[in-house]
Formats: sequence, structure tokens, C-alpha cells
Amino acid sequence: MIDKLVVIGVGLIGGSFACALRKAGLVREIVGVGRGRGNLEQAVELGVIDRYSLDAADAAAGADLVVLGVTLGATAGVLAQIAPVLGPRTLITDVGSTKASVVAAARAALGAHFPRFVPGHPIAGTEHSGAAAAFAELFLAHRVILTPVDETDAHALDVVRGLWEQCGARVVEMTVDDHDRVLAATSHLPHVLAYTLVDMLASEPDAEDIFACAAGGFRDFTRIASSNPEMWRDIALANRDALLAICGDYRARLDTMMQALAACDGDALEQSFRRAKDARDRFVVPQANARRI
Amino acid sequence: MIDKLVVIGVGLIGGSFACALRKAGLVREIVGVGRGRGNLEQAVELGVIDRYSLDAADAAAGADLVVLGVTLGATAGVLAQIAPVLGPRTLITDVGSTKASVVAAARAALGAHFPRFVPGHPIAGTEHSGAAAAFAELFLAHRVILTPVDETDAHALDVVRGLWEQCGARVVEMTVDDHDRVLAATSHLPHVLAYTLVDMLASEPDAEDIFACAAGGFRDFTRIASSNPEMWRDIALANRDALLAICGDYRARLDTMMQALAACDGDALEQSFRRAKDARDRFVVPQANARRI
Repeated sequence: MIDKLVVIGVGLIGGSFACALRKAGLVREIVGVGRGRGNLEQAVELGVIDRYSLDAADAAAGADLVVLGVTLGATAGVLAQIAPVLGPRTLITDVGSTKASVVAAARAALGAHFPRFVPGHPIAGTEHSGAAAAFAELFLAHRVILTPVDETDAHALDVVRGLWEQCGARVVEMTVDDHDRVLAATSHLPHVLAYTLVDMLASEPDAEDIFACAAGGFRDFTRIASSNPEMWRDIALANRDALLAICGDYRARLDTMMQALAACDGDALEQSFRRAKDARDRFVVPQANARRI
Repeated sequence: MIDKLVVIGVGLIGGSFACALRKAGLVREIVGVGRGRGNLEQAVELGVIDRYSLDAADAAAGADLVVLGVTLGATAGVLAQIAPVLGPRTLITDVGSTKASVVAAARAALGAHFPRFVPGHPIAGTEHSGAAAAFAELFLAHRVILTPVDETDAHALDVVRGLWEQCGARVVEMTVDDHDRVLAATSHLPHVLAYTLVDMLASEPDAEDIFACAAGGFRDFTRIASSNPEMWRDIALANRDALLAICGDYRARLDTMMQALAACDGDALEQSFRRAKDARDRFVVPQANARRI
């Protein structure tokens, strides 16, 4: 039982984790922290949090667990603010989309508290944001990746793992580098590709007519281009090296595809399309079906 | 009222057009044509067609309207087969995803019948294919693009337009070139991008682990990579010039994005992401909502 849970950044993820912990009966009091009073007041009204503070240090004093749900760009600053008030048993975790940058910030800011910082990343989300978008079931049957480092305290890791599991998530552990490489591939690169396409088409003189001809495939393909631009700027910058590497790989693949097309090499095109379809049908579709159960 | 409708290629689109015309009470008899007996027998069982033939010329004799629902690669061959048996008032239309290639094939094959050929493309679909995937409501509130050329008979165009409208579609006319350019941008390029990404990740040694970390955004982004590989090979080849042009534009945009990332230019990234989000939220989301009504 967590007596005092402090969620700094009551957005979709932080807010949903709060909702899920409460629904699982694991928490007595939830204090939210943020910069905007509007979102926090809404979070109280919706029952996502019990009360709020605009001061992270003020809220974090006496906390059993602090969850960082802020954007990556704000992480280092928040960690520096709360470090002086953390108790000797306070656990700290985060939900950030990249891990090397967060771990570096935590190591720098937390000092003796760093072993009780458990880096985490729930693989869940929608294109909506803010406390109003939060719901307790967001993590059901979704993966949560924890990326402990050498210094990470085994007990802290166990507790955070258990909390996520009791929220219905499937927890896996990875190294920081593996996490950042895999997420660059499955999440950060697709966002860059979708944003790039929509921005390109939006710059055409007949953009409205072009979009009017878009079918459901385009709508789904570009759904992630409706995501929060600031958040994705931060993610791209925080995972810059891994993202640049995979962008480069992708660009080379696209060149190969264009060369096949220029050469009218239908076999090469079909083989690539078929490998993609087979892999997606085998690995991605069953996963989605499993979640609907 | 169409006395005899012949649908050559009873797949998702051809089959759904047949279902929609029947549901609207516009057709007396529907004859399906295909290469595979299994799909055609299923189409009869499901009531998509009344009877079938494996011989396009045999079926097309005496038809009031022939709908080509075959893949682009098969179009020229089918047109050549049916040309000798078409009556002096038979209308012909198609549902192909590219129009320059189809119009060229029709002009070459149909001779004096060419003015009664109305090139068409319904902007609708799912990632499923075959007669079993067909349903009458597929075109409701979706666009159907007709691309008449100089020779196209005004009456033939009016009739085909009216049929689509009575199936619930919103018909627009475009030039062949505009169609192929716009569809390259909104459909063919996204398919190439999605196939390229999934094929690349599938080639990684830890592909299964990578896909296991994919969230809903990845699933939606790659939905079109589950599309039929042969069909998309044909589309890519048929619209090669327009597709190569837009791939080149996209590649240049991706380079710019990578340069901004390499330079840690957060403002450039955020501005591009924001332009994309604004355009999508303004032009793509309301369209989807309108369709749900």
C-alpha cells in the first residue's frame, strides 16, 4: 500500500497510472503536480488525483512513490527540484519514452537516491493528452519496459514491477540501450515518417483537395501525426543518436525500393511487400487480437 | 435499371459495388467472372453475384454494364478479351487505383467502344480482399473519382456517376494526371513507406522482440503493410512515374528532418510536427468523423 503517491505531470500516462493504482486499491492519497492549474483542477474533478500542488518539491516531501509523468524536456529540472526533499525510502520512477537521457538526468540529480530510481516506459498511449484523457485500463495487457542499471536497488525494482503488474501490465526488463534502439524503430521513426508525410502534403498548394482524397489507410497511417508536437520534439532530441541511426537505415531501404521501382523490378517490390505483410500478420496482428480479450 | 451487370474480378471492391448496386435495387442479374472457382462459388453463396463464368468474353456478351474489378496487371488482358463481344450500348467502367495506365490500356483495346469506358476509382477499401470481404456499405460517404478523357461519352459518364451516387458515394471528377499524382501522395507513397518499415524491422535478428514492443501507433501506421503484395506491386508499377516523383520529394523532406535532428534544431522539428498535426486535425479527422454519421 502506497500511503502517498505523487504524480508529477498528470497527463495521459501519469494520470492513467494514478487511476490504475487507485482502481487496484494500492494507494491511499494521490497528489498531482503540474504547471497548469486548469489540468490539475480537472484531474481532481475527475478523481484522477485527490489534491494538487504547483510546487514539485513541496508535494514530493513525505512521498512513498514519486512518478514522473512530465515531458522529457522537463525531466532533469523536476529531478533537481525534488532531490533535496526525497526521504530515505522514497521510490522514484518515470514513464519517459527514452531511457538513456532520463537515466543520465537521474544519476546527475538524485545522488544517494539514484538506486531507488527505477526507469520505466509503459508501451501504451493514444493521440490524446492531458488528465481528461486518462483511464485506468490504459495498461491492460500492454508491455511496460523497465530498464534497471547497475546501481538500481533490487527491492525498488521489485516494488515498481509489482505495481505495474497489478495494473494489468506485462513487465519486461531491458537494457537502456536496447530500449532506446527498439523504441526508435517501433515508435520514434514511425512518428518522424508520419509527421514528415503530412507536413509535406500540407505544404502543397492544393493540400485540402489532396487530403479530401485520402482513404482510411491514410488516416490510420497518419494517426500518430496528430500527437503532441512538443512531446515528440523532446523525444526525438532525447533519443537523437538511436533515431538518426535508424532513420539512416530506413533511408537506405527507401532508396533500394525506389531503385527497384525505377528499374520496373516487380519481383523485388513484391518480395519486399510480401515479407512485410507476412511479418506484420504474424507478429503484430495476433498481439492486437490478444489485447482485445 | 441494369438488366445484366458483369463484374470481372469479384474482390473487395468489385464485389462491394455489386452488393451496393443490388441493395439500391438497380440491377436485375449479376454475373461474376474470375480465375478461381473457390472465390466465385463463395460469392454466389454470399449473394454477391447470381452466377459466374470463368470466361470473361462469354460473360460480357449481352452485358449492359461491365465493371472491371481485376488487378491492374490483369486489366489490359481482360479488356482485350471482352472487346470483341461488347454491344453498341454496353458501358464499361473500372475501379483501378491508377488511371493513366488503365486509360491507355482501354484506349488500345476497346477501339470504337472506348468512349463508353468511364475510368473510375472508389477511395475505399480495407486490408482484406476477396468476395467474402465485400459489403454494400463500403462506399457510403466515400469519394469515387471519375477521370473522363476527351473521348468519353457524356451519357456514359452520367450513368456511371449516377450509379455510384445511388450507392451512397460522393463522386468527383479529376483529370487522369491529377488523380495519379494525388493518389501517389495519399495512398501509394504511404503503402511504400509502411511496407519498407516493416520489411526492414522483419530483417533484424531480434525482429520478434522488436515487434513485441510495438504499441497501437505502430499497428495503425503499418496496417496498410498487411495489404495484398501482388496488388500493390501492380499499383506501384502502373503509377511508377508519379510514385517515383513523390518518393523523391519525400526523401528530400526526410533528409531535411534528419539534418534538423542532427543539428539538435528542436524548433525546426517542433514546427514541422506542429504543421503536420494542425493539417491532419483540420483536414483528415473531420472527414473521418463525417463518415461515422
